[in-house]
Amino acid sequence: MTHSLRNRFLLASGFHAPVCGEAEAFRNRLIELDGDGRIMATWEDGTADHARLVAEAEQSGRLTRLPEGQFLLPGFVDLHIHAPQYPQLGTALDQPLDVWLKTYTFPLEARYRDEAFAARAYAMLVEDLIANGTTTALYFGTIHPGANRLLADICLEKGQRALIGKVAMDHKDLCPDDYRDASVDAALKGTQDLIDYITHHPDNGEGRVKPVITPRFIPACTDDLLHELGAMAADTCCHIQTHASEGDWEHNHVLDRHGMSDTESLDRFGLLREHTVLAHGNFISLDDMEKIALRKAAVAHCPLSNAYFADAIFPLAQALEKGVRVGLGTDISAGPSASLANSLRSALWSGRLLESGTDPALAAGERSARAGQRVDVPTAFHVATAGGARALGLPVGTFEPGKIFDAILVDPEAAGAPIRLWPELYSGDDEILEKLIYGVTRANISRVWIGGELCSGAAL
Amino acid sequence: MTHSLRNRFLLASGFHAPVCGEAEAFRNRLIELDGDGRIMATWEDGTADHARLVAEAEQSGRLTRLPEGQFLLPGFVDLHIHAPQYPQLGTALDQPLDVWLKTYTFPLEARYRDEAFAARAYAMLVEDLIANGTTTALYFGTIHPGANRLLADICLEKGQRALIGKVAMDHKDLCPDDYRDASVDAALKGTQDLIDYITHHPDNGEGRVKPVITPRFIPACTDDLLHELGAMAADTCCHIQTHASEGDWEHNHVLDRHGMSDTESLDRFGLLREHTVLAHGNFISLDDMEKIALRKAAVAHCPLSNAYFADAIFPLAQALEKGVRVGLGTDISAGPSASLANSLRSALWSGRLLESGTDPALAAGERSARAGQRVDVPTAFHVATAGGARALGLPVGTFEPGKIFDAILVDPEAAGAPIRLWPELYSGDDEILEKLIYGVTRANISRVWIGGELCSGAAL
Ligand SMILES: [Zn+2]
Ligand SMILES: [Zn+2]
Repeated sequence: MTHSLRNRFLLASGFHAPVCGEAEAFRNRLIELDGDGRIMATWEDGTADHARLVAEAEQSGRLTRLPEGQFLLPGFVDLHIHAPQYPQLGTALDQPLDVWLKTYTFPLEARYRDEAFAARAYAMLVEDLIANGTTTALYFGTIHPGANRLLADICLEKGQRALIGKVAMDHKDLCPDDYRDASVDAALKGTQDLIDYITHHPDNGEGRVKPVITPRFIPACTDDLLHELGAMAADTCCHIQTHASEGDWEHNHVLDRHGMSDTESLDRFGLLREHTVLAHGNFISLDDMEKIALRKAAVAHCPLSNAYFADAIFPLAQALEKGVRVGLGTDISAGPSASLANSLRSALWSGRLLESGTDPALAAGERSARAGQRVDVPTAFHVATAGGARALGLPVGTFEPGKIFDAILVDPEAAGAPIRLWPELYSGDDEILEKLIYGVTRANISRVWIGGELCSGAAL
Repeated sequence: MTHSLRNRFLLASGFHAPVCGEAEAFRNRLIELDGDGRIMATWEDGTADHARLVAEAEQSGRLTRLPEGQFLLPGFVDLHIHAPQYPQLGTALDQPLDVWLKTYTFPLEARYRDEAFAARAYAMLVEDLIANGTTTALYFGTIHPGANRLLADICLEKGQRALIGKVAMDHKDLCPDDYRDASVDAALKGTQDLIDYITHHPDNGEGRVKPVITPRFIPACTDDLLHELGAMAADTCCHIQTHASEGDWEHNHVLDRHGMSDTESLDRFGLLREHTVLAHGNFISLDDMEKIALRKAAVAHCPLSNAYFADAIFPLAQALEKGVRVGLGTDISAGPSASLANSLRSALWSGRLLESGTDPALAAGERSARAGQRVDVPTAFHVATAGGARALGLPVGTFEPGKIFDAILVDPEAAGAPIRLWPELYSGDDEILEKLIYGVTRANISRVWIGGELCSGAAL
């Protein structure tokens, strides 16, 4: 029994989706991991070397067989999480965005000046996300240096691959007095301090945690701050995250203030680069999409949250067709679930409703002008794993050689949470994947590995 | 320790929603059940008799205290389940309705001529629904007498409150040769046989299982059959269920064939009565709503399924305002989840998307003409429990005196599936209910009682 699969051979059945729109099933695939948890090579069952290598690995005590009937999937990549908002998950969703921010969200985030509170809430969040199968998390923190450092410490301690941003927000019109960067310099210093802290963290030799330049969104930042953060991005080559064109109010606010869209404005400030993640993007235009694709930036599609705060659905299929890199986000806590599997499922129904429209009082032809906007399970599964990984430029999200082994094991027979498979009724593997995707709950995720190391579940 | 709460006093904290739009929290409420599992009386903590009665019940060994920190809710009422479709749950949802019916669904339903298959599938279904908190289920069966009887047997054996219909479908244009009632008489005889079987079942003394007259939907039935089923409904006063105005195709098919809406046509055949449940109803007009309300019939709103097969969202808020009785349905397997809690959550986001529209390319004012269509958590919670019970005319769905005790116990601290409560952050109980509703999974449902008898979970 071992907690680590490093330097071992793994015999596994499951699914991954290296190509958008295609899910690949494998059975008894032999996977070799190196000492860093990277996949060295894989062998298909029935090939010449497979049987020999299985026997050799078994002989040398280096073989791990995954339990029969359980399925290996790449870990989920969650591209949009407000870490401090976890305590209010699932509450206050009936509020309009401005009330939600001012009455609930900013006061909650301001609490993270209390590091004891931060330590308790962040430990719960990271533990829950890992147990839900989120092996990579892109986090907005708060403005507080202590709490942000704690979040990095906790991710390293629990083993989660994480990208963490000190939220930069200095605009007096939108940010409350008790929860705002005191100046451009204060915001920059806080950002640089977290970059330094994470980069030099003694437990971060593998770079599992990375810093992110994080202007909250244009309305919360002065132009000076945006300009300086763009310069810092050019200097440091850090990841960038912010919100873009989420809802009508926000989108129009930027049009009024800058005379251009969020995407154009962020680009002008040097904030639209490879590995920039724009949360939501519901209202980006076709020109914006082309610009985002050109810059190799990405969108974090947060379908469940969009139903509550965006009043529109992000056109995922169209963005993929335009070559935009897209991953999925829970948007904790504007989205009421901490499970990226729920985001994945939400991408399926929301694509259908974008395509069909919603109002039964309109004739079918008038209900929607958005043909072709549905996505299928293999596409959403790709976006939730390989798509998110590509957005971040991280070598995870599939089981191809060269990728680091971030994976979850799904047990359809989990006690008290069975996913009922009926292979006798199916023509192939597609239906098994569909049943896993539609059915998986936290209780079905029996094990989670990050970098080849077990982070949740029992050792094998 | 006892498996039954009959003739006992229960000390419980939790929520129910006797009034639409209002959730009521209670703490340490004392609930007295009679020998049939009916609530005799309740006492609030702090009232004159409460302390005395608690002490007396404890003394006489008749007190059951629910575990600290767990919440009692009324069991869910699922108003629309195709029992035979459970094996294909979560698959084939990318297919258009006609392909889905002809290639997947009818062939699967036809398998239930094999009673061994039926016994296996139905046992799994009923067990899973109970574990998911569905204490009352309204089932479409198949055309097969043996399989329908088995479903009744299994519900009685496992204790689920169930209403079961032999599906009547005799129209040669829509129904395949190998899965169709051979004649009007055959359909009527099959319906009457199941009514007799259930009514006289030796284990059904309490009437926990009831028969339902079940024309599949107008397109699948000849006018003769609809007419005769209407007469049978008048004779027997049985419940009725069918589909009405689900999607564009079906709605227009009835307009073409009968020159009127499903609702009007069903009414003409005597099939729109008190305790008729119309599945979906997405395309019912305001006149239809008034007619349904007048007849005291009901709609089974199936929001998750609607995203896949209806191409529109049922206007729940409007229907409630018009006085229509509404409950929720999973619509297994056109809906991909067997959890009514998922339907409840889906009613929340789908109301938002009906109100807001979905297409970001349209200006906010043009995206939707449906203001006021959102529903809040207390409303959806009411509809999922008391609303469904009222639709069926069953004395369940709340903890008021006179109601039969059908209930679930939600454990937010369930091992491996915690719902994180932060009462220190809340102003009241509303947020706790919201967190339970948004977070509950099967793993959190620690116990299920039906008629005061434990049907899932460990004895107390
Ligand atoms: Zn956000
Ligand atoms: Zn149906």
